[in-house]
Amino acid sequence: MSSQDERARRQLIDLAAEFYDQFDRGEVPEMTLPTRTKSNIEYDEDSGVWVYGDRTSTRSANSVRGARKLLKATYTIDFLARQLEEGRSSTLRELYYLSESWDSDEAAFSDQDESNQLIEDLEIVSDVTREDFHMRPEESGATLMGPLELREQTRRGEREIHCQKDVGEGGYQIPNNPDTIDFLDHDIEFILCVETGGMRDRLVENGFDTDHDALIVHLKGQPARATRRITKRLHDELDLPVVVFTDGDPWSYRIYGSVAYGSIKSAHLSEYLATPEAEFVGIQPEDIVEYDLPTDPLADSDVNALESELDDPRFTTDYWREQIELQLDIGKKAEQQALASRGLDFVTDEYLPDRLDQMGIL
Amino acid sequence: MSSQDERARRQLIDLAAEFYDQFDRGEVPEMTLPTRTKSNIEYDEDSGVWVYGDRTSTRSANSVRGARKLLKATYTIDFLARQLEEGRSSTLRELYYLSESWDSDEAAFSDQDESNQLIEDLEIVSDVTREDFHMRPEESGATLMGPLELREQTRRGEREIHCQKDVGEGGYQIPNNPDTIDFLDHDIEFILCVETGGMRDRLVENGFDTDHDALIVHLKGQPARATRRITKRLHDELDLPVVVFTDGDPWSYRIYGSVAYGSIKSAHLSEYLATPEAEFVGIQPEDIVEYDLPTDPLADSDVNALESELDDPRFTTDYWREQIELQLDIGKKAEQQALASRGLDFVTDEYLPDRLDQMGIL
Repeated sequence: MSSQDERARRQLIDLAAEFYDQFDRGEVPEMTLPTRTKSNIEYDEDSGVWVYGDRTSTRSANSVRGARKLLKATYTIDFLARQLEEGRSSTLRELYYLSESWDSDEAAFSDQDESNQLIEDLEIVSDVTREDFHMRPEESGATLMGPLELREQTRRGEREIHCQKDVGEGGYQIPNNPDTIDFLDHDIEFILCVETGGMRDRLVENGFDTDHDALIVHLKGQPARATRRITKRLHDELDLPVVVFTDGDPWSYRIYGSVAYGSIKSAHLSEYLATPEAEFVGIQPEDIVEYDLPTDPLADSDVNALESELDDPRFTTDYWREQIELQLDIGKKAEQQALASRGLDFVTDEYLPDRLDQMGIL
Repeated sequence: MSSQDERARRQLIDLAAEFYDQFDRGEVPEMTLPTRTKSNIEYDEDSGVWVYGDRTSTRSANSVRGARKLLKATYTIDFLARQLEEGRSSTLRELYYLSESWDSDEAAFSDQDESNQLIEDLEIVSDVTREDFHMRPEESGATLMGPLELREQTRRGEREIHCQKDVGEGGYQIPNNPDTIDFLDHDIEFILCVETGGMRDRLVENGFDTDHDALIVHLKGQPARATRRITKRLHDELDLPVVVFTDGDPWSYRIYGSVAYGSIKSAHLSEYLATPEAEFVGIQPEDIVEYDLPTDPLADSDVNALESELDDPRFTTDYWREQIELQLDIGKKAEQQALASRGLDFVTDEYLPDRLDQMGIL
């Protein structure tokens, strides 16, 4: 077992030992967690990410329902500890199905929400991430393309891969747990995270990664944990600026927000996943006006989302207030690929160089 | 220009020349296409795929609406011919936006359905695929993992990649146009197409590709054209059996159907995309019974889909009738990952070896 696996296993066993000690002392076993409701999650100004507040909840075996929850937790801890010992991994969905094979019928999960929730609880109380439990998501992260040479530790041995020279047009596929990667060498000037596949392909075709020594990270819509994690590691370990390029609508601003500030749902992981220094490139509402882009009208749901962003602490800067109010005023949204209305090279010859220059990146 | 690009460009120019000749002869220009309605699509018993029937429709400039359609077609032909000359490519969505920059306002597409439809029309009349027009989809294909060495022609030069030794856990990312790939060498015994990411990762973790010399193709739900195309090429050029492993529900049988027989929507591409020899592994309704898998009840929409499959010529074999009737009878469906209820290795140690043995593959 690696030292990381050993630590994860130790933390899990300690949780189980805690239940044992409670029994031993004649106490009703319980587990204490931060309360995971919206009202107990706050934006931490210092770190620039979401964190839990001070309120806690207790799962106690003093009711049948509570006892069953702790039973499921112990079976899951047992499974995860074995998985780590054996150097194996599994998906969240496999865990749910696997619980049917456990020798106590009471321990089987009633649905996958319950097992997913338990894994999140265990992440919080053990201070170990799901990836370090060797739990995989259903779908993996996206791809990288740019002047980066890395070493990935796979089950079949080490692989050294240059993310331009050793990959096809599709790029390097980010593994489920990007902490298996070491960065060996690079000529990257900045990290460019791109929302859509169409725009990612445009930038690669136009050679934007080679012309500007950019590492292009495909976000593929709302980014997977693996994609956010590798972005954060690239920023922290290689000291590189991160910029995020999305469509110009409120849902895409949230994609930027999840890269930069984390999400309410995974507030316990903000330090692991969020890159508060990440900056937003566009499409900005002012770009819609300035470049006279083809647009769609804002739907009611868009207007509501924009209004709720005005109250979101992640967006309470002068910059975002101005952009969001402008967008509500013009009543329009635009996609990244709408830049093609000025020609296929406009995005790489004019739009991105101009914006990145304004932002001090180029 | 490659000879393939030159042929595509020639076919497009010929279409435009046809309009020119019609004008020159004093005729109203028109374009004739097979009628693309469900009633004009038939299952061809000989080739085992969907093809168009004999009925045709004519797009004529004898109405303003028809004339505008031909105008858009000529602008699009002009754009595609230039794109091929310049060795460039673009997405369907970029084409839609780009039409706003054309010098005739009348030629701009009113929505993306219109431009997508026109590209399909041009595929049919020119007998050139969208990929050979250098039109990319929004999202690319999925991944390969297995004993295959290939050469991909990228814009940055050739890349030789072994799909086990030169890739990370994520595998080799299939490019948008897999016809840029040459197969160099392989030890593949059979191609295993897998619907879900969770199962794909399970097979890779358990080393199923190395133990059985299988090439694992991730379908990622309903497979992209690139994924179906490379599967067909692997079958045809390397003379390898193809098997498809999906969830056990009517939607997944359609995923199998689209790999094997093509789809009604892309009947003009069946010869390019479909692999009629592909066989279905499971999850079969009889597996649900035999292995006592965890299930969900069939929803009304599942029942309707199963009933319509009983009338679908692709599923009118004794085998499918029996399986579908059994499923309607038990009223249940099961996911691939439900096999985990018998342990994480059950799928690779028992289920797949048994099924592949029954099918004569192993």
